[in-house]
Formats: sequence, C-alpha cells, structure tokens
Amino acid sequence: MGGKRVVIIGGVALGPKTACRLKRLEPDAEVVIIDQDEYISYGGCGIPYFISGDVNSVQDLMSTSFHMLRTPQFFQDVKDVKVRVRTRATAIDREKRCVHLVDLATGAEEELPYDRLVIATGSTPNRPPIPGIDLPGVTSVTNLHAAMAVKDMISSGKVDRAVIIGGGAIGCEMAEALGDLWGIETHLVEVEEQVLPGILAPSLAGIVRTHLEEKGVHVRLGRRVVQIRKDDEEGGLVVELKPEESLHAQLVITSAGVRPNVELAKSAGLATGPTGALIVNEMLQTSDPRIFAGGDCIEIPHLITGKPVFFPQGSLANRQGRIIGTNLAGGAAKFKGTVGSFSIKVFDLGVASTGISPQTAAKNGFDAESVLVVQADRAHFYPTQDLIYFQLTVERKTRRILGAQALGANGDAVAGRINSIASLLPFHPTVEDISNLEIAYSPPFASALDVVNAAGNTAENILDGLNRPMDPAEFEKCLLIDQDEECLCLDVRGPANAAPFVERFGARWVNIPQETLNKRMDEVPRNKRLLLVCNSGVRSYEAMRQLEREGITNTKNVQGGVAALKKSGVFDRGNESSD
Amino acid sequence: MGGKRVVIIGGVALGPKTACRLKRLEPDAEVVIIDQDEYISYGGCGIPYFISGDVNSVQDLMSTSFHMLRTPQFFQDVKDVKVRVRTRATAIDREKRCVHLVDLATGAEEELPYDRLVIATGSTPNRPPIPGIDLPGVTSVTNLHAAMAVKDMISSGKVDRAVIIGGGAIGCEMAEALGDLWGIETHLVEVEEQVLPGILAPSLAGIVRTHLEEKGVHVRLGRRVVQIRKDDEEGGLVVELKPEESLHAQLVITSAGVRPNVELAKSAGLATGPTGALIVNEMLQTSDPRIFAGGDCIEIPHLITGKPVFFPQGSLANRQGRIIGTNLAGGAAKFKGTVGSFSIKVFDLGVASTGISPQTAAKNGFDAESVLVVQADRAHFYPTQDLIYFQLTVERKTRRILGAQALGANGDAVAGRINSIASLLPFHPTVEDISNLEIAYSPPFASALDVVNAAGNTAENILDGLNRPMDPAEFEKCLLIDQDEECLCLDVRGPANAAPFVERFGARWVNIPQETLNKRMDEVPRNKRLLLVCNSGVRSYEAMRQLEREGITNTKNVQGGVAALKKSGVFDRGNESSD
Repeated sequence: MGGKRVVIIGGVALGPKTACRLKRLEPDAEVVIIDQDEYISYGGCGIPYFISGDVNSVQDLMSTSFHMLRTPQFFQDVKDVKVRVRTRATAIDREKRCVHLVDLATGAEEELPYDRLVIATGSTPNRPPIPGIDLPGVTSVTNLHAAMAVKDMISSGKVDRAVIIGGGAIGCEMAEALGDLWGIETHLVEVEEQVLPGILAPSLAGIVRTHLEEKGVHVRLGRRVVQIRKDDEEGGLVVELKPEESLHAQLVITSAGVRPNVELAKSAGLATGPTGALIVNEMLQTSDPRIFAGGDCIEIPHLITGKPVFFPQGSLANRQGRIIGTNLAGGAAKFKGTVGSFSIKVFDLGVASTGISPQTAAKNGFDAESVLVVQADRAHFYPTQDLIYFQLTVERKTRRILGAQALGANGDAVAGRINSIASLLPFHPTVEDISNLEIAYSPPFASALDVVNAAGNTAENILDGLNRPMDPAEFEKCLLIDQDEECLCLDVRGPANAAPFVERFGARWVNIPQETLNKRMDEVPRNKRLLLVCNSGVRSYEAMRQLEREGITNTKNVQGGVAALKKSGVFDRGNESSD
Repeated sequence: MGGKRVVIIGGVALGPKTACRLKRLEPDAEVVIIDQDEYISYGGCGIPYFISGDVNSVQDLMSTSFHMLRTPQFFQDVKDVKVRVRTRATAIDREKRCVHLVDLATGAEEELPYDRLVIATGSTPNRPPIPGIDLPGVTSVTNLHAAMAVKDMISSGKVDRAVIIGGGAIGCEMAEALGDLWGIETHLVEVEEQVLPGILAPSLAGIVRTHLEEKGVHVRLGRRVVQIRKDDEEGGLVVELKPEESLHAQLVITSAGVRPNVELAKSAGLATGPTGALIVNEMLQTSDPRIFAGGDCIEIPHLITGKPVFFPQGSLANRQGRIIGTNLAGGAAKFKGTVGSFSIKVFDLGVASTGISPQTAAKNGFDAESVLVVQADRAHFYPTQDLIYFQLTVERKTRRILGAQALGANGDAVAGRINSIASLLPFHPTVEDISNLEIAYSPPFASALDVVNAAGNTAENILDGLNRPMDPAEFEKCLLIDQDEECLCLDVRGPANAAPFVERFGARWVNIPQETLNKRMDEVPRNKRLLLVCNSGVRSYEAMRQLEREGITNTKNVQGGVAALKKSGVFDRGNESSD
C-alpha cells in the first residue's frame, strides 16, 4: 500500500502532535500540515513568559526540549511531514475529499485531496464590543505576532502604564508579566466582583486579588469598560470605566477569553454543539467519520457535570493529538473528557484547580458545600514551610468530590496536591476517599495527616453536622461590613495573638484560649451568635465541640481562621472602610 | 449514660489521635492513655531532622502546629484525656475486661477496667544478630531517648566517623543527618547490591547511591557486618565487614527495620498474621471485637498485591487513629489498606514512591515491565527547571499500573507526581489512565505533556511493541562490564554531545544525529545489536521507529538516555573499572 494521505489544517499544537504520532505508527502515511501563519508548532501558553522576559525569544517557544527549532524544514527532515505555511484552507469538499487552498504569498489556488482530514484550527481571542477596541495600542496576546509587537513596544520604553481588560488567567499572567520585570504601572479591570471569576472560589480569589495588589497591580473589580479613546492631550489611550473612572495608558491588553475557529468546518456541514465548538465522538471524529478534530476548536464532555464544555488547554490539545494520531493509524484510542484541571502562577503564588468551583456547582444544580482548610506543606516541625490554602467542593447528598482548588507560595506543592485529586476525579471519589488518600509521607514533603486528608476530614465533619463552617467572605460581611450586633467573634488563640483584635474590635472580639475553655465556660456569651476563630480553623473546631457539650450551639467556625482572613486582606479592607 | 471507658495502650501517634477524635465525637467518654515512656505524642519521623539540627529540640517534635507542648497536662486540660506515663501494661484480662498495670516509678500494680481497649504499642527496632551489637556507641535511633543520646554525643564533638548499618530509608536519612550538618565521615553499609533495597527500582537506586557518594557518604553495597568490636588502641569501635573491610568509628547506628510490639496482645490470645503483626478487620478490630489496634503493631492489606503487609508509617497511624476514634463512638469507618506510598529526602534529592517496585512485582508473581522516563518538571522553555526521573511498573497482560517511583532535585514536584498516581492506585488504573491523567497545566508547574503522561505513553508504546526498552543497569552491563562485542551504541544526539563518548568508546560508539538518520541510513551497522541512546530516550525512540521502517529491528532503546546513565554514575564507574 502506498500509504494514506492525511491533511491537517492547523500547525500549532494538536496538528504537529497528530502528525508525529501517526508517522511513528505508520511511516508510509503521507502527512501534510497546512497553516495560514508563518509560525508553527509553538508553545502559546509561554507567551506571557516571553513578554515578561523570562523566556528570551520566540525561538525558545518554537524549539524542542533538545533546542531544535521546529521549522517546516525540521518537520520535513526529521519527521517526514510536509508543512505548508502561509497557506489558507478556504473550503472543504467532503464529496470529493479535498481541501481548497490559497497560497497567501502568491494568491495561487489549489485542491489538495485527502483520505483523512484533521481540523486543528484552534481559537481566536474574543474582542469585546467596546468602542475604540480597534485603536492602535489595543491588542490581545494570543498569537506570536501580537506578542512580539507588545514586547517591542515595551522594550523600547514606550509603555509606562497599561490596562488589562479581563481578570481571568491570561489577564492575571499578563499583570505579572508587565509589572514584575518591566515595572509598568498596571491596571487590571474585571467586570465581576473577583479575579479568576467562575473558575476560582471567592475565598481563594480574594487571596489572589490581595497578592496582586501587594505586588503593585491596581485591581478594579466590578467595573465595565465602556470606551477606549485616544488621549489627544497627553498621547496614548484613555480607558473609560463604569462605575466612572478614567485610566490613562499606552497599552491596553484584552483578555476576554477565546472562541473556537469553526467557520471552515461549519461551511462544510460539520456539526457544532451548544458551546459553538465542533462536536466529536470519543475517537475524536467529527460528524464526518473521515474528519477528525481536536484542540481549541472542539467541545468535550466535562466529567463532573456531564455537559459539553469548551476548555481550550495546550495540555489537552497534545493528548488529543496523540489520540487522533493513533486512530488515524487504525487504533481505537479514546478521549473521555476533562475534569477541568488548570494551574497558574501569579507573582509569588501558585494556584491550581481541578473539577468545578462552588459557583459552577451551584449553576449546574448541585447542592454543594465549600470546605476551606489551611495547613503547612510539610510537617509542622520541619524548618522551612509554606501554608497551603486548600478548598474542596463537595456534593452534600452523595458526599462526592466535585472539585478542589489550592494556592500557596510553594506552587509545586500546591499543584501536586491538586493533581492527586485531579487523577481521582474521573473515578467519582467521595470525602472518605480524600480522607484516606495516601499522600507519600515524610516530614520534608508532607504532613502525617496531609492538607489533602485534613480537607477530607473537615468535609466529613461538616457533612456529619459536627462542624458548622463560615466562609471568610461571610465573616467579613457579618463582622466588618454589616457590623451585625448579634454576632460576636470568639477568638480561641493565645492572648498575644488575640490582643490586637480585641483592641480593635472591643467587646465584639472576645478572647478565651481553647486550652482554658473548659474551665472558663461561664465567661462565654450565650445570647449572641458566636463566630469561632483560631489561626487555621482547627482549634476553633475543637472549641465548637466543647461548646456543644455545654449546650452552646449558636456557633460557626470561621474556615481557614485568621490565616485565611489576613491573607485575603479582610482586616486591611476593614481598616479602609472605617477611615 | 455515664460514658464508656476506653483504655489506650501506647501514646505516641495512633493513641493520642484515637483519643482526641473520640472525645470530639463523644465528649462523655472516659479516655485513658497508658505509656511506659515519659515522652508521648511526638513525631518520630522527625528524629533524623532533630539529629541533623534542622529541628532544634525534642520539644519541637512534641508540640502542636500552634507551638503547644503535648504533655499529659495538655491532654488533661485541653482534650479531657487522662495520660499515665511511666506506666506499663503487663497483661490484658479479656474475661474481666481489664488491663494489669505497673507504675514504673513506684512498682505499684493495678487493674484498670475497660469497655473498649485500643492497642497502640508500636514497634521496636530490629537488632541484627551481630557480635558486639550491644557495645556502647552502637544504637538505633527510633525513640527520643536514643536520639537525644546520639545528638549529645555528636554535639559534644565525640564523633569523627560513623557507620550506619542498613541502607533503607532511616539509614539514608541518617547519612544525610550526620554528614550534611555535622561533617561526620559516614559509612553506609548495606548487604544488598543497592540502597533502599526492595523498595526502589535499581535504576533509581543507582542515582541515590551516586548522589550519596557525591555528598561524601562512603557507600558499601553487598557487604555484611560480621562483627563490631572495641578498638583497644585508638578507642572507639571497629566494624568488620565481609567482603573484608574494617571501618573505624565512634558511633554505629543500626537501621535494620522494625518489628511490631505484639507480645502483650499475643499473651491475651489476640491473633497475629503471617507478618507477625496483629490481624485487624476493616474497622480495625482485633480478633476480640472489643479490642481495636492500629499503627506500627498491625498488618494491613496491600491494595496492589492483595496480601497482608507490615508497613509502619506515621501517616497511616494517624489515619487509623481517626478511624478507631470514629468507630469507638459508634461509627463505621473503614481502613481498606495501603498502596505503599512513601517519600524520603536524601540530601538534595527528593524520592517518592507508591505501589510496588519491579522486584516486589516479580516476587509476587506479576509479569511486569519497568518503564523509565526523564523529563523536566516544567515546560521546557520555562527558565528554571529540574529533571524528574520517573519509573512506572506495569503488568504486561492487564496493562495495570502496579507502582510508580520518581526522584529529582525538586522534591515537591517529584512527590506531587507520585501522589497523583498514589490516589489512583486503589482504582486499578491502566496505562491509558496515566496517559490521560489530567495534570494541572501551566508552564511554571508542568509540561503540556507532563512527565506522568509521558510515562504512560512510553509504557503503552512498550506494551504495544513499538518501543523495546533497555534499563540503564542492563546497558552498563552490556557496554561497560561485559564489553559485549555484539553490542554497539548508536548515539542519535548532536555531534557536540556525542564527541566525548565517541572518543572514549571508539568504534563501539557510533554517532548519527536523529535528524540526519533518514539520509544516513546506509551508515547504520546492520550486523550488530544496536543500543540506541539520546539525552532522555525520546529521540532514540523516534530513531527506533525510523530504523524499523528500514528493516533494522535488532535495536534497544536505552531508557532515560544519557541523563539517566550519567546521573546513576554509570560512566564514572566505567572509568574506575578501566583503571
């Protein structure tokens, strides 16, 4: 047999992966990759690090791990894969099994026949419908051309101030890229009331926001951009917000998500789903079994909600590329879906997540509990350590784990914990599975009862009614914003820790150390709702059990304790509001 | 009800955990902990860090995470748990439901009745039957008294040289403790041919051994200690080995494992199993349902082999303590077994493992394949990164994952990867589950195709016959030890990398870079067995596929490539042997 001809439209992540896997399995296959761009096979997720300067050149993003540039010539010589750049696929003729091409340099048209076709057309950044969005100086950063233009602008000293529209993952990464190495005064504008909206629990998002602010980023939450205009007096641009504020900047970066590039496939009659992306089966075939699709242009099943989602991730594109390569060679590999894992570095914080957040759980009709624990990443007696803020989302009725999120200064330790949950999620674990999850223990790398296990135990205690939790945000509302007179904080830490709070809050902050509580039970106010607080939520849980024994049940345990409250800037904001 | 009386024999890890959990659930319960020692509730796993000086004082090992010393008084005041130290349980009368006690200070005897009894008697270090093992200066380090004595001896400058007998986990940790901070000339003697025998795959154990040697530890493998004697001339001790060698030292530490303390329970007629430890059911009840047991004195099911194992780990003791506490309060919590996770820091290397090693797999009758991959812990373009050496053990017929082990300079990243497998193992994952395991991706914390996924993919390729692997140790034997003339190394890296090897090995080391291989196919020797080598095993796999296409099939792919060979000191040992 002469070898089947496989045409792949798109050469960034999935396309090359598919081509290489297929050629290893079936060396006789004739494989052609088409791409309208001149750049192919690059790590798009590295763009923020290229802009920051952590990655020196775009060549680094286009190289193999052994420093070989993945050019069309490389693919030809090393992989026996033909790559045609600056070539656009304008139509797919499924009857004739050919793709119509235009050479963007010469304008020449051509029909390229295929036995199998792979659609790897990726995604395009959303351009929010804002007046002025097309002005020079306003850009997204999802492809190398835009990234190079932005870096040129920055490195030639033309940018003192920048506005980022959208506080999602790319927005937060870009805030670090601009602020950390270049020292650009950066404003991050987000229409929702938190950064990383929809994907991070509010308790953790508050910590990220506070950290961004500590690093000098001006975070504007709950603000909509209504217009971008030229600043005729000072030069540059003015970004107008509502509630009213005007931000002057030379550079405006939009990070409002991406949408799948499906026009070509739709024109050929291939089916798209509720998310607008292409529908594929487990083998990653489209509605035409001769045509496969993967990467940022398809929708995939979410393994927690069971619904299709559009979840563009370079990691998934790579895995799907391998699966398509296997199946093109006659295999039967399957892609079953996503649990939604992701991670992000925001300055000195590592953030990781898997499954769904409490908000996404609510939107999908789950009756879910959110559990927050704070614990060191190592044995508490080990000399160096960092706290991990760990959140679990649990379905009440079934005790099923719906998601987990964490953050902390030791990003590897944070990501490692989340990965231990991520791998488990397809198997529908319960809180008991998390309580007994067998983290590899030794004092330098874990606690004997690791933060993951502690989260499982706490979830179990909450579901069993032993622990009545209160979220840090709820605490802030109750004690600081509403200043609810029916609420009183009972701080069960030692006097030295509690003193500044007693001084600030007066009669509304009572200190009885937990180790003296049994003896001082008659000092506990019985006519108020008690918000129990310690450093992390452990001793306050113990206090709740002690109070319960004495019939004092109008209590809530503040999750994550003072560690979480401080880290999310609750008391600093309290200061501002009382100014 | 007046509250049941629960007596707990043993107050280090499981005992206190059980007591505290029970009291939170059932405050009326009367709980008494008996311990023959004066020290209770300490982190025994921290002893090597106390000896090294990383942990300043034993108090740190006996404190809570909020710096409160866990004394008997603490348990009384804070937990309402009575602790009786320096009190030995001499017999259990199951008929009368009471424990016979002796007060070790006064000699007074007593009978203490119980409704439920918990056996938490822990373990005792093995004393190898070596003449001289009882000499002063020979000690184990598994309890605080011994640890303090060792630290006193070291810190008063009495130890220049030390011998550690046993290259297991404690032996390796002690080698670091003595060498790193105290600068003691340390000899590590192990009867097997590798460090961490039985628990770490030889390919990884070779890397640990080389690292120990780089750090100045004198590693003596395949040597048995035949005698320890006083050195009458110079003072101190002499440790006599076979094959013959005499090591002079002032301190000899034995780390030959531990055995369960079951005499008391056995005398009372409670059943022990094939490992010699107590048999318990999933509720952690012994053969007498009124008596529970947990921690270092029980055997538990191994979830991979299905057989009972004795696996003393502080982390498991804590989890079992919580389960017993729950069940004493009328709950029905279950402990299903262990997947055998552990981790260890050896100087600058983090090592973690879960499931079973290739040797344990073979011993248990599995037909298993060992897979080794080497890859960075982050995106390859990210500026800082460390390699992870990752090993999978896979059952050939079922494609089931039996175990995973890894090591690298970034211990948190290493442990995180292993934890992602550990959590999955009870669910009987296959290689396909590992290929698709959804590691939380972003360039600072993972690769798009992470090392875990790469290991799954490589395992799949090996099981499918696409990749024929050769272990680094096998390579060493073939090329360096046996100097097999039928074998030839085909190095597919660039000429600059290959040159020193071509120079050293002459005609037995041929260099054809992989990107030129298709064009230079006629230069490939066809009458030899080809050992394909690149930096990590990726390009050499690609070369294997290319050669296959040309009918050259007498090839093996050296797993982990030159990265693994160098790291395990293969070429250095090669130098020695050619001296």
